Amino acid sequence: MNDLLVEVLRGDQVESRHVGSAVVADATGRVVFAAGDVEAPVFTRSTVKALLALPLVESGAADRLGLDDQALALACASHVGLAVHAEIAAGMLARAGRDVSCLECGAHWPTAREGQVALASRGEQPTALHNNCSGKHAGFVCLACDSGDAVQNYIRPEHPVMQRTTAALARATDTILDERNRAVDGCGIPTYAMGLRALATGFARFGSGAGLDGDTAEAARRLRHAVAAHPDLVAGPGRFDTVLMQEFGARAFSKMGAEGLQVIALPEHGLAIAVKCADGAARGAEAAAASLASRFLGEHDTLWRLSRPVLRNWTGTEVGALRPAI
Amino acid sequence: MNDLLVEVLRGDQVESRHVGSAVVADATGRVVFAAGDVEAPVFTRSTVKALLALPLVESGAADRLGLDDQALALACASHVGLAVHAEIAAGMLARAGRDVSCLECGAHWPTAREGQVALASRGEQPTALHNNCSGKHAGFVCLACDSGDAVQNYIRPEHPVMQRTTAALARATDTILDERNRAVDGCGIPTYAMGLRALATGFARFGSGAGLDGDTAEAARRLRHAVAAHPDLVAGPGRFDTVLMQEFGARAFSKMGAEGLQVIALPEHGLAIAVKCADGAARGAEAAAASLASRFLGEHDTLWRLSRPVLRNWTGTEVGALRPAI
Repeated sequence: MNDLLVEVLRGDQVESRHVGSAVVADATGRVVFAAGDVEAPVFTRSTVKALLALPLVESGAADRLGLDDQALALACASHVGLAVHAEIAAGMLARAGRDVSCLECGAHWPTAREGQVALASRGEQPTALHNNCSGKHAGFVCLACDSGDAVQNYIRPEHPVMQRTTAALARATDTILDERNRAVDGCGIPTYAMGLRALATGFARFGSGAGLDGDTAEAARRLRHAVAAHPDLVAGPGRFDTVLMQEFGARAFSKMGAEGLQVIALPEHGLAIAVKCADGAARGAEAAAASLASRFLGEHDTLWRLSRPVLRNWTGTEVGALRPAI
Repeated sequence: MNDLLVEVLRGDQVESRHVGSAVVADATGRVVFAAGDVEAPVFTRSTVKALLALPLVESGAADRLGLDDQALALACASHVGLAVHAEIAAGMLARAGRDVSCLECGAHWPTAREGQVALASRGEQPTALHNNCSGKHAGFVCLACDSGDAVQNYIRPEHPVMQRTTAALARATDTILDERNRAVDGCGIPTYAMGLRALATGFARFGSGAGLDGDTAEAARRLRHAVAAHPDLVAGPGRFDTVLMQEFGARAFSKMGAEGLQVIALPEHGLAIAVKCADGAARGAEAAAASLASRFLGEHDTLWRLSRPVLRNWTGTEVGALRPAI
């Protein structure tokens, strides 16, 4: 049910292997490439942040609150917790008349070393603004405030904001999302399991607008362009999603998810790639997704580097590399 | 060739899976449990630090330089980079009349958050003393200085220190170690690939002394007892190896290795466990090894927690767990 996705080489010998599943699908759900079981349910985690952000734009809340492209990009982000990320999240909350105290995502240290050192050197502790999901959560708060809903418990499945964002995800992916395929994500909101093909279909639609209502398609276009204009906000310096979109701009909408997920929408092809590394490893999902992307975006230095990253030890010596196998 | 080792649950559904191989063997190489291919070569990485430390003790260098149990424990360690670890490594170097400048392992940030914050809050950068391998490297420097060998390039395969430590590893595991199964480890020294059964056999010998020369068996006993007396030095607070040995002392010698390796010697049983998680994930190797250990050490709260760790999100909510499958 899983195929070999990526081999990890030390010297010229295989040290570790990542298996999983991968699919490329169009907006109708047609599969143009598949490896492994692409119908088995996988929790979609942070891959779907942009789909969950559709109601924020489509409802007009983003415009009424004056959220700019940076805010919209951060609403789709799993950011690395630099000062710029925390500041934009705080600004979104301020637009809704709120502050960090209403965020229900919990606090964690920035994932970027630079962000960790910046906080620690000032003797500060991280706040919920540094949580990689703070932009998504700030967007939820904005949506609640714009609609006049109570903000508290906005992460619970029965809250109107979760109902609306879940409905947007269900429509985009043509899946039934309920308590049977629901669990709790790292940031406290519900995460739903669906087949990898359904996930790719949702992003083929998000990338091209095909199969979406007119207003939803326009919201998707705005979110895509916001992220393409600010790829540094959707992750951070040197991170896969940021590097890919710094290179390809609006030609590739790339988003990781915890436990080995990677989605790349390819708007000009009307397709999207979705990868699940069965063991949950980001490196496996990234290399496999970059390798698949090169079939559509063409051979390219950036895709080569992302699909075959060199492994170096602490003195900088090259000790191995990843090698895609799909 | 790989068996299912561990499932990762989100809610009550399987989100990710770790496959690999696992073996329990005695000092003669007899297999009492096997899952997956236990003869396929795997790079042994940091699992073998204690075997590489045998010449330091057996040669008398440790005694001549006055290395205490803390130093011997750190020579076997993949530590988390707290101040205590860096200080002991510096002390070992001082015993040899050297300092951090001769270490060839490279510098990296402490893996423990507490260590990172401590450095950053003082505006400091990590040095080679914070490298998780600094104790092993300091031991190599001690061995070189005691023998009158030039210290420079002590990490290279042809250096007398690497020749002696590699020979100790080859003897303990009955394997031929040469350029055909050699690659470069994260800290710059050679790492060699061997079957998981050979690795377990080496640690069954290390744990019991059976199959080792008298001087080697005595050196192994001293290293085991040094680590058992200072389990906080071999890794760090909350880490698998430290927690296991804080609970079981000299009844279990536990050592992780990069890319999903875990070894646990069980001296009173004359056995050792070796696990390779095929994808390189520590969590998979740890849960599988703890589960296997409970077959010999008995059902025990600590082993239960280590084999079935609960996954919590950033607000502390329980969102899943690991579940051993072997």
